[in-house]
Amino acid sequence: MAELNVDPYADLYARRTSGMSASEVRALFAVASRPEVVSLAGGMPYVQGIPQEDVFDVVAHVVSEQASTALQYGGGQGMPALRERLAMLMREEGTEADPEDMVVTTGAQQALDLVGKVLIDPGDEIVVEAPSYVGALSAFSAYEPRFIQIELDDNGMVVERLEEALVKGARPKFVYTVPNFHNPAGVTMSTARREQLVALCREAHIPIVEDNPYGLLRFEGRSEPTLRSMDPQNVIYLGTVSKVFSPGLRVGWALSEPGVLQRMILAKEAADLCGSSFTMLVTERYLSGGRWRKNLQGLVDVYRSRRDAPQGGRDAPPRVVRDTRVRGDRPRIQRPDSPEEGGRHDGHRPRLSCLGQQTARAWV
Amino acid sequence: MAELNVDPYADLYARRTSGMSASEVRALFAVASRPEVVSLAGGMPYVQGIPQEDVFDVVAHVVSEQASTALQYGGGQGMPALRERLAMLMREEGTEADPEDMVVTTGAQQALDLVGKVLIDPGDEIVVEAPSYVGALSAFSAYEPRFIQIELDDNGMVVERLEEALVKGARPKFVYTVPNFHNPAGVTMSTARREQLVALCREAHIPIVEDNPYGLLRFEGRSEPTLRSMDPQNVIYLGTVSKVFSPGLRVGWALSEPGVLQRMILAKEAADLCGSSFTMLVTERYLSGGRWRKNLQGLVDVYRSRRDAPQGGRDAPPRVVRDTRVRGDRPRIQRPDSPEEGGRHDGHRPRLSCLGQQTARAWV
Repeated sequence: MAELNVDPYADLYARRTSGMSASEVRALFAVASRPEVVSLAGGMPYVQGIPQEDVFDVVAHVVSEQASTALQYGGGQGMPALRERLAMLMREEGTEADPEDMVVTTGAQQALDLVGKVLIDPGDEIVVEAPSYVGALSAFSAYEPRFIQIELDDNGMVVERLEEALVKGARPKFVYTVPNFHNPAGVTMSTARREQLVALCREAHIPIVEDNPYGLLRFEGRSEPTLRSMDPQNVIYLGTVSKVFSPGLRVGWALSEPGVLQRMILAKEAADLCGSSFTMLVTERYLSGGRWRKNLQGLVDVYRSRRDAPQGGRDAPPRVVRDTRVRGDRPRIQRPDSPEEGGRHDGHRPRLSCLGQQTARAWV
Repeated sequence: MAELNVDPYADLYARRTSGMSASEVRALFAVASRPEVVSLAGGMPYVQGIPQEDVFDVVAHVVSEQASTALQYGGGQGMPALRERLAMLMREEGTEADPEDMVVTTGAQQALDLVGKVLIDPGDEIVVEAPSYVGALSAFSAYEPRFIQIELDDNGMVVERLEEALVKGARPKFVYTVPNFHNPAGVTMSTARREQLVALCREAHIPIVEDNPYGLLRFEGRSEPTLRSMDPQNVIYLGTVSKVFSPGLRVGWALSEPGVLQRMILAKEAADLCGSSFTMLVTERYLSGGRWRKNLQGLVDVYRSRRDAPQGGRDAPPRVVRDTRVRGDRPRIQRPDSPEEGGRHDGHRPRLSCLGQQTARAWV
């Protein structure tokens, strides 16, 4: 940001801005938007998979039946009818949710921001995975925490390392995890690790922030139980319709116990008064009836076929490869036949960072 | 919030949450939603004034021509084509704006939050008007400033009082003002006061945050120049389509010099990645062509006729009366014939807090 050299306000910025630099998320989006990058690799959901006539039906219904509501302010917690539908999505993964315990947010990203705003004082410790979702790090960083990074292996967060950190005196405000199809690592936390994490955090009185954008994109096998279902009192659950329907509507949510929830609603109202009534009604209508389920199956089929596609030769499109266990989460674009890939992706490592049961590469 | 008494996380909340209580804005919305309160008095824009067929046309165009873009993520700064339209709105009030200097936000409320996030460290002084828009106080409070309140009279902020505060050693990070049809005071800043404020802040090297949701709702007379047009280098301008079109789409914006702007974009990305592509495209389409101007004239006519309506007798609907110069901005519901009103609204005070040229009672 060269123009900042002559910035007349250089002495006025808040301390929290000193850590702000060109967004990591933006950098990844920029890579994903390049036409030669297949979307499996980079990050954009395959919204073309949602039939246009379904979108039209839904939107036409909202405009003809609910225009005054759609164009007006709504409450800060989000529409009750939509929260019912979001609770239904959670039941698909075996998690009971009371819509009263929910706040609708501008994508799950805003839920991350509100968690940070409500829980983090400057200097507070919080636990994140190594690597962690870059958007979460951006959101939390604004509140100036100290990050305690806990490594991942093929079964998710290595909970023994967290326990060691606690024994050594770490007192984190919360533990942040993406247990399903981790972005960027691709791993899914095993049942045993989930039980271990939930028990440890309960004992240590540390809330867990469970970020689950990809749970319903499972290609095969059975779902792991959500952490929230294992300990509703101690887990703040974050969800989004970005992968199930559309990220362009910016509808996500947080589910929490009343103390945290009420503060998140107040923080939400201070941040933007309320979400868009229009996109909430569109999402509510889309999730009523059966089409969302059929379309989601279509999306999952597309993502699975991309994973299974032959890697191709010299003419295959380049892909973004992130071997996230070793070097963090910066994407590199390389051709499948490049020498570097041959060297790094040997027999021990999958070529497309499919480290777990599958890799869901779309973004929150 | 009685449930907080047994809150297991009572020791975990960030310090900034201690000032959070049931939102003032929410309290006002609740009053305005009561069917017996006419919307002039309480706060909701008259969205029924936007013809349904216009909304349908616009939305049908977006779905049929731009569905993939509408459903997908967008950039953190907001769509260039929309920013062009928002610059056009600003030109309607005689203010030149470069779309490159703009970030699209979730209503003007998010712009207020981002200004606070980028500029306020805990304990910093900021200048607000007395009374001030409650949503702005909520947004800024999350960053723990000390508020310096400067009184209003019929010509807007009494700039001499600000000058006195600076002489006594106040060093505010910025001055926040709603110069047109102030919410809740109803006053409009005179040209002379604008010149005085701009000159003082420039000399003192204090940026002005100009919040102008109501400028285009003028009932009569000519527009005052925006502060931004008088000193583009030292004014952060906030706008919204909530009053011109619809608050349910949550489209607002900030216009600023590059240093502040770049930080606001980064803070926006950390807060919610990006705005809704869908509502941005709908807004862009609505503001192209001539219908927005015709519909806005219709809205202004409705608001003017409400202001001019006879006050009625015992059967007239109760109204929210805020005599904001005297008692702050808490609404009271009273019947026109109530003894209290007779006592308070004597010859010196207008009955509906029309303190300035008009009162715009809708919300940001």
